[in-house]
Amino acid sequence: MIKQEEIRISTGGRGTYDLSRQVQQAVRSSGISTGMCHVFICHTSASLMICENADPAVMRDLETFMAQQVPDGDPMFTHTAEGPDDMPAHVRSILTQTDLNLPVRDGRCALGTWQGIYLWEHRTAPHQRKVLLTISGE
Amino acid sequence: MIKQEEIRISTGGRGTYDLSRQVQQAVRSSGISTGMCHVFICHTSASLMICENADPAVMRDLETFMAQQVPDGDPMFTHTAEGPDDMPAHVRSILTQTDLNLPVRDGRCALGTWQGIYLWEHRTAPHQRKVLLTISGE
Amino acid sequence: MIKQEEIRISTGGRGTYDLSRQVQQAVRSSGISTGMCHVFICHTSASLMICENADPAVMRDLETFMAQQVPDGDPMFTHTAEGPDDMPAHVRSILTQTDLNLPVRDGRCALGTWQGIYLWEHRTAPHQRKVLLTISGE
Repeated sequence: MIKQEEIRISTGGRGTYDLSRQVQQAVRSSGISTGMCHVFICHTSASLMICENADPAVMRDLETFMAQQVPDGDPMFTHTAEGPDDMPAHVRSILTQTDLNLPVRDGRCALGTWQGIYLWEHRTAPHQRKVLLTISGE
Repeated sequence: MIKQEEIRISTGGRGTYDLSRQVQQAVRSSGISTGMCHVFICHTSASLMICENADPAVMRDLETFMAQQVPDGDPMFTHTAEGPDDMPAHVRSILTQTDLNLPVRDGRCALGTWQGIYLWEHRTAPHQRKVLLTISGE
Repeated sequence: MIKQEEIRISTGGRGTYDLSRQVQQAVRSSGISTGMCHVFICHTSASLMICENADPAVMRDLETFMAQQVPDGDPMFTHTAEGPDDMPAHVRSILTQTDLNLPVRDGRCALGTWQGIYLWEHRTAPHQRKVLLTISGE
């Protein structure tokens, strides 16, 4: 059995957005008990990750780390058509994930206690983001 | 239904190679309408990524970024048997992807408008690379 | 057909642990000939990767690289509740993989000659880690 569902996220600009509830809800609705839940973001300047879901300082520290590793406006970047955060958004995306696969067990994504599913918006301006879920199994 | 297909890429050395057309062609040939297309590179010194497919400057900037983050010949590396680009190629590979999963919808990979599928050759010399596609679904 | 199996790894602290044998054994036991083997680590401070399996210097160099990129005790990190390696462990995890998908062909993971499957423990203290395998196909 395979179910596909599209979800739309309105981001308020750079930052992380917890998708765990929406993804778990889609798995529940699918009626699939054992299998996989695939999460795909249809963009190259926002990405996905599994990360610690308890302390908000983790998300702030991730942002600090990325801002240091891939600074906006770095003169080494030539792809700047959409501004100083354009190329850094692509680099941040390739350093994290465009797709995630989560095991489904007993009708839900078998995440560890501290694991959350996040969309990471890398552009500074708000964007509409499309995420495609594919849930398969028995 | 599951179909597997091997594709061979002759790289001309370090750089990115667009696989989108070959992957979409394999999905079309599979006859699968809804499901997943898995792309796996059978190497540890070349990798895969989804990235922006419109402006060639993006690929040049990615290369500039990686060359700065993981410089060839960095004296901290001891695994240098195959030359100054040997260990950097492994590091670049673990920072990007060895496998990608792409949702199949309406008989094709449901990529976003600006998403392309790339093989990134990290060795400076030309190589023969093997990519294994597994397409599954209904 | 879908089979799930949990494996437990006792790590001795920071370092890499080769899971290739255990994963291949699980695929063999599953009786699945063609399909996918998904490997998921249920943690956010240890991760997974496919890397070169022949020269132990590769693992040492990877550790050296990460220690330089994401130094323990970096004052930019504020999430330090569990010590100087707490936030670096989360960053190292998001730069590598929480899940891997491996193609199954002829009853085994179709890894390239030099590819091994590794768990990378990022915390300095020993930990018990849970890895969930989902093997599907025909």
